[in-house]
Amino acid sequence: MGREDTGPLRFRAVMSVTVVGSIAFDAVKTPFGERERMLGGSAVHFALAASFFDDVRVVGPVGDDFGEEEYEVLRSRGVETADIEHVPGGKTFFWAGEYGWNLNDRETLDTQLNVFGEFQPKLSDESRSADVLFLANIQPDLQREVREQCAEARFVAMDSMNLWIDTAKDSLIETIKGVDCLMLNDDELRMLTGRPTLLSAAHEVMALGPKVIVAKQGEYGAALVTEDGLFFLPAYPLEIVLDPTGAGDSFAGGFIGYIAAHAHDEPAGQLLRRAMAYGTAIASFNVEEFGTERVQRLTREEIVDRVDELQRVTHFENAPIELRA
Amino acid sequence: MGREDTGPLRFRAVMSVTVVGSIAFDAVKTPFGERERMLGGSAVHFALAASFFDDVRVVGPVGDDFGEEEYEVLRSRGVETADIEHVPGGKTFFWAGEYGWNLNDRETLDTQLNVFGEFQPKLSDESRSADVLFLANIQPDLQREVREQCAEARFVAMDSMNLWIDTAKDSLIETIKGVDCLMLNDDELRMLTGRPTLLSAAHEVMALGPKVIVAKQGEYGAALVTEDGLFFLPAYPLEIVLDPTGAGDSFAGGFIGYIAAHAHDEPAGQLLRRAMAYGTAIASFNVEEFGTERVQRLTREEIVDRVDELQRVTHFENAPIELRA
Repeated sequence: MGREDTGPLRFRAVMSVTVVGSIAFDAVKTPFGERERMLGGSAVHFALAASFFDDVRVVGPVGDDFGEEEYEVLRSRGVETADIEHVPGGKTFFWAGEYGWNLNDRETLDTQLNVFGEFQPKLSDESRSADVLFLANIQPDLQREVREQCAEARFVAMDSMNLWIDTAKDSLIETIKGVDCLMLNDDELRMLTGRPTLLSAAHEVMALGPKVIVAKQGEYGAALVTEDGLFFLPAYPLEIVLDPTGAGDSFAGGFIGYIAAHAHDEPAGQLLRRAMAYGTAIASFNVEEFGTERVQRLTREEIVDRVDELQRVTHFENAPIELRA
Repeated sequence: MGREDTGPLRFRAVMSVTVVGSIAFDAVKTPFGERERMLGGSAVHFALAASFFDDVRVVGPVGDDFGEEEYEVLRSRGVETADIEHVPGGKTFFWAGEYGWNLNDRETLDTQLNVFGEFQPKLSDESRSADVLFLANIQPDLQREVREQCAEARFVAMDSMNLWIDTAKDSLIETIKGVDCLMLNDDELRMLTGRPTLLSAAHEVMALGPKVIVAKQGEYGAALVTEDGLFFLPAYPLEIVLDPTGAGDSFAGGFIGYIAAHAHDEPAGQLLRRAMAYGTAIASFNVEEFGTERVQRLTREEIVDRVDELQRVTHFENAPIELRA
C-alpha cells in the first residue's frame, strides 16, 4: 500500500475513513447465475471501494461463521478490520434475494438479522478520530449515536432506506440534520420528502442541513445536488450485468473515498463531480460479477480507464445554431 | 419564417422534415391540474419542436372537431399543414390519461381512435420529397408504406410502442430494417429484443440496419448508441413538472429537427450529441405546462440557455489521482 511521505501526500497519509454498517453473507439469484453464500453487506462493499483511496476502518458485527477467509478479502485491500466486532455464539447477518430478468426489480427471499439485530456500534479511538465518516444503512438512532462519537470528522455522509422512512422517519430526519451529505435512492428521496421531483426533494433535504445530496438512480446513474449547482452522471454502460447487489455501496465507497483522499480541500464543485465518476466506475465493476468477486481483483488502471470513458460518453460540444423565431 | 438565401444557409433552406403520426385531443389529469381537451398527438408535439430548426410538414388525420384554432397553433410556428387530412364526418383521435403523484406512472383512461383508426397516409409530392422523415408511433405496416414512398429521404427515424411489439412484432422488425434511426423507450427496446441491458438491446437492433439508436429514459434523459460510441444525457432538471404528455415527441422533434438543419453533414458524432441536447431542452419546456401550452410561446433564446445549462450539469474535469494498489 503505503504512499511516499513527501509533499502534500504526507498530509493525505493521515486521512482516514470509518464506515459503520452491515457485514453479511448474501445468497443471490439473477437470470445469469446464483451464489448460495458470498461475502456482502453495505460496509464490506463500501470499504473495498474506498480502499483504493485511503485508509478505511470497518465497524460492524459478525458471528462465528465469519472466518479468516472473509477477513482476508478486506485485509488484502488494506482495510482495517480491528473494529469488526465478533459476537461469540452469534451468526452473521444473512440476506437472500432474487432479481428479475432486467435486474431492475428484486425480491427479498430471506432476511436473518442475527448479530446485526442487536448491533450497538462500539468505536475504537482510531475509528472515532476518522476524518471522514460514512454511516451506511442502519437504524437511524444508531447512525446518530455514531455520528456524535465522531466529533472530529470533517465530512460525514449517510445512506438509509425505505424501511426507516416508514418506521423511524422522525429519527431519520434528526440524523439527516447532523450530516454533510445524504446519499439515497432517488425514489426514497421523494418518499422521504413527499416531493415529486428529484430537485424539489433534494432542496427540501438541504433545508435540513446537508450541503450535498446524492440521488442514486440505479442503472441510470446518479445525481448530485449542492448549493453550487447540479451534476448528473450515467451509470457506466455495460453490455452484461450479472449481479447489482452492492452497487450503491460500492458507488458510495468510491465517492466518499475520493473525497477523503482530498479531505484537506473543500468538498465542492469539480472535486465532488470527480468523486461521482470514481464511485460510478467502481460500482460498474461490482455489478459485472457476483458479490465482491470482481472488485477483489480490480486494479487502479481499470478504474482510471472507466473514469476516462465516463467523460467521453457524457461530453458534448455546443456549437452556435441559427434557430427559427 | 424564411432564412436569408446567402452562403451555406441557401442549401439548408431547401431542407425539410416530414412527420407522419397522430393528431389528437388529449384529456390529461396530473397531481397538479387537469385539462379536459387540449391539442396533442405525436405529430403535433414533434412538429412544434422541429419547427425551430427547419420546414416541417405534418401528415395525419383529423375530424370535423379540428378547427381553425388548432391549425393556427401549428401555422403560427410555420408548420405546413396542407397534408393534414380532414375526414368529413369524422372525429379526431382522443386520448385521456392520468398520471401518478411523481408523474412516472400513467394510466390510460380512454382511447377513441376515431379517424386515426382508418388512417391511410397520403403523402403529397412535397411530403414525399422530404430530406428527413420521422415516422411517429403508428402501426408499423403504415410506417413502412410511408417510408417506401419517401425514397429521397437522407435520414429516416421512427418511434414505436409496446402495443406493436406485442401485436405486430414481425412487421415492426421489417420496418426497423428500413430506417436509419430507431427512437424507443428503453424498456421497450429491451422488450423488443429480449435483451436485459440497454447496450445489448441497442446492439441487437443495430444488427438489423439502423445506425443510430436513441433510448428514451423519461425523467432520466436519453441514451444514444451509434457505431462511433455512446452518449448519455440527463433530462433537463426541473423543480416542477406539470404534464409529461408529449415529452418523448418533443424530444424527437428537437433531435430530428437539429439533424435536418444539418442534413448536408453526416449525422454522426458531435452533431448527434448536440441534437440530443436540443431535443432534451425543448422536451423540458413541454413538460412544464400542459399539452403544447409552453412550447407555443417558447423562444430561441430559452432553448439555447437550456442547452448551455445541460452542458454545465454534465461536465466534469478529470484530474490525475494516485490510487492505491
